[in-house]
Amino acid sequence: MEISPLAPAQFPDLPKISGVSFAVASAGVKYAGRKDVMLALLAPGTSVAGVFTRSATRSAPVLDCQAKLGGDPRGPAAILVNSGNSNAFTGARGTGSVEALTQSVAAQTGVAVERVFTASTGVIGEPLPHDKIAAQVATLHANQSDTGISDAAKAIMTTDTFPKGSCATVDVHGQPVKIAGIAKGSGMIAPDMATMLVYIFTDAEIRQAELQELVSGLNAKTFNCITVDSDTSTSDSLMVCATGASRVDVSGNEAFASALHALMRDLAHQVVRDGEGATKFVTVSVVGAKDNADAHKVALSIANSPLVKTAIAGEDANWGRVVMAVGKSGAAADRDRLSIRFGDITVAENGWRAPNYSEDAASAYMKNAELEIGVDLAIGGGQSTVWTCDLTHGYISINADYRS
Amino acid sequence: MEISPLAPAQFPDLPKISGVSFAVASAGVKYAGRKDVMLALLAPGTSVAGVFTRSATRSAPVLDCQAKLGGDPRGPAAILVNSGNSNAFTGARGTGSVEALTQSVAAQTGVAVERVFTASTGVIGEPLPHDKIAAQVATLHANQSDTGISDAAKAIMTTDTFPKGSCATVDVHGQPVKIAGIAKGSGMIAPDMATMLVYIFTDAEIRQAELQELVSGLNAKTFNCITVDSDTSTSDSLMVCATGASRVDVSGNEAFASALHALMRDLAHQVVRDGEGATKFVTVSVVGAKDNADAHKVALSIANSPLVKTAIAGEDANWGRVVMAVGKSGAAADRDRLSIRFGDITVAENGWRAPNYSEDAASAYMKNAELEIGVDLAIGGGQSTVWTCDLTHGYISINADYRS
Repeated sequence: MEISPLAPAQFPDLPKISGVSFAVASAGVKYAGRKDVMLALLAPGTSVAGVFTRSATRSAPVLDCQAKLGGDPRGPAAILVNSGNSNAFTGARGTGSVEALTQSVAAQTGVAVERVFTASTGVIGEPLPHDKIAAQVATLHANQSDTGISDAAKAIMTTDTFPKGSCATVDVHGQPVKIAGIAKGSGMIAPDMATMLVYIFTDAEIRQAELQELVSGLNAKTFNCITVDSDTSTSDSLMVCATGASRVDVSGNEAFASALHALMRDLAHQVVRDGEGATKFVTVSVVGAKDNADAHKVALSIANSPLVKTAIAGEDANWGRVVMAVGKSGAAADRDRLSIRFGDITVAENGWRAPNYSEDAASAYMKNAELEIGVDLAIGGGQSTVWTCDLTHGYISINADYRS
Repeated sequence: MEISPLAPAQFPDLPKISGVSFAVASAGVKYAGRKDVMLALLAPGTSVAGVFTRSATRSAPVLDCQAKLGGDPRGPAAILVNSGNSNAFTGARGTGSVEALTQSVAAQTGVAVERVFTASTGVIGEPLPHDKIAAQVATLHANQSDTGISDAAKAIMTTDTFPKGSCATVDVHGQPVKIAGIAKGSGMIAPDMATMLVYIFTDAEIRQAELQELVSGLNAKTFNCITVDSDTSTSDSLMVCATGASRVDVSGNEAFASALHALMRDLAHQVVRDGEGATKFVTVSVVGAKDNADAHKVALSIANSPLVKTAIAGEDANWGRVVMAVGKSGAAADRDRLSIRFGDITVAENGWRAPNYSEDAASAYMKNAELEIGVDLAIGGGQSTVWTCDLTHGYISINADYRS
């Protein structure tokens, strides 16, 4: 698979986060000869917050993580992730696999089973060969390294064409606090309260309940604002782990919240940049809606419209399809107040094509790899920004024959 | 454009409907040398019922038709339709075009302007060259023929690869009542209270209010149950015209309602069969939902999922994506009670792959051009059936460069 043309120039140099270490291994879950399992170990007292898919058919690991969040944080914690198989829709056997794996990690590492979190990503409905993974746990424990995060980013990839990472160092009360995160995701991307697999680590000190509130709020503005194909995964998991090793209390600190926000947005953008078959990164900005919820409806309606996305793939300034997507969204709209712009070019206003509209200028703009579609509904103060990609032959090729 | 592989073998031999006549002409709205306008004239007293898009950005002709429905039915009526330009999002100029055309028809035919209905289908946001159409109205009036319906079916086509027609003769109180209908539609198909352009004519006698109620109810089970790409047109219009010429009162007659239902379903299926790029006709049947609304949500979630639709295109029995689509639908579902079948092959039940599941048998089934995906949620009595097609390279090719 070729690397997405929208990929960042390189994987960032992620800092060590005191209190967390990583290792990867080749368990042969689906493919032989690639690293497909990662184990992260977290220092005692680490606050672990998480947001997960709201799918009614969510996977066994997701259900297990949800049950464990918010438990006693005093002991150490662990996160075990495999790619190649999602252990979703695998019935009682799926639950059994999670139990086998969490107990294996607990036995090898001494972490209480209630603090062992897992995730699985890949094909749905196949039995997870958990014995193969369990057989690697001792090695994963022995090979822990505080510089292993970039290998972990690669081990959790599925159809991703590049590993995704982001980091920040933020000054809190004159002291440095570090954050580093990794993500995977490329298709089946339309987060609903969470998304894909995302793991973020920080040495900040913060209580679990407060971290959870912060993460849930930021998630609504980042991972819940991206879409590749409107399909929501059964495995979506975001976890943020604060080890406290810096001894810097970030409770209520705006600089920390802002840095975490930027990092989450960066990782979310990277998922869109790796959207299956994507050749364009598109920002959809909606303002002037009745309220923020209506603005989000309109933005998602545009970002998920196959006709808008194929027009973008064809570099066609087909703003009529944006009108269509506004119209079908269900949000309050007044056709004659609506205005639409592509980048800085106003293409439609007052219920029609802008008077100075130039097809040549709009077509030239569409050749950019990074595009913005702006919509002003001009009826209220609601706004929302959503990020998406185009819909190309590449998406069809990747997904028409995924399993074989 | 090649004819869809799912097209019916031939256009049906539609019967003459007493009280309605047709003519077509070449106005050169977008392309030169093809028939692109049709005018239907309806006898005095014809009941005209209609259902239209609920889009907030609906077209000027749709707004005009909605304002006119339910008016005094005593005089004659007319329907003027052009292809090549939808007169949607054309501001005050669009309304002016509708006025110019309805007045032109009224002047030439003697039909009161309040009984002249129009529709336009094609590109959004371009000014409608209504003078070109108005210039053809005298010819359209002079050339009226009671056998012109098949030409009308062709004149209203846009990206359609075949004209769509259906007919029925039904026995009411020992007397024959005839129904004939035509439709166009291929992309931007996700009806919301109505769909595409559909014109149905019958010589039945029935009051407008009663016809409207019947048509609205049947629409919910036919055109509102199809989707090609989840995008809803700004021009969707369905009109049913009962001339009364047979002198057979069909009020409350179940045979008539049933025949009209079958005809509307047939036309709706033909639209899906002409779905842009379609190679498979797919019936999605959901039973056992909490209620019918939930069943419809699940059925549409499956039918609109790009990942389900690309799997079907790839003849991949990827039922895990059906599980995903059920999960994201927002409807009540219990992962462990859910069962899924492809045709007669149960692929998943009790929260996992069916014990006797055979990948070979499922893969062989997926090679059929007509497929059924059945879902039983097993938690209630709600049910819904939706029809869709696959998502192929053909859809991308057609839509990535539609305007050029």
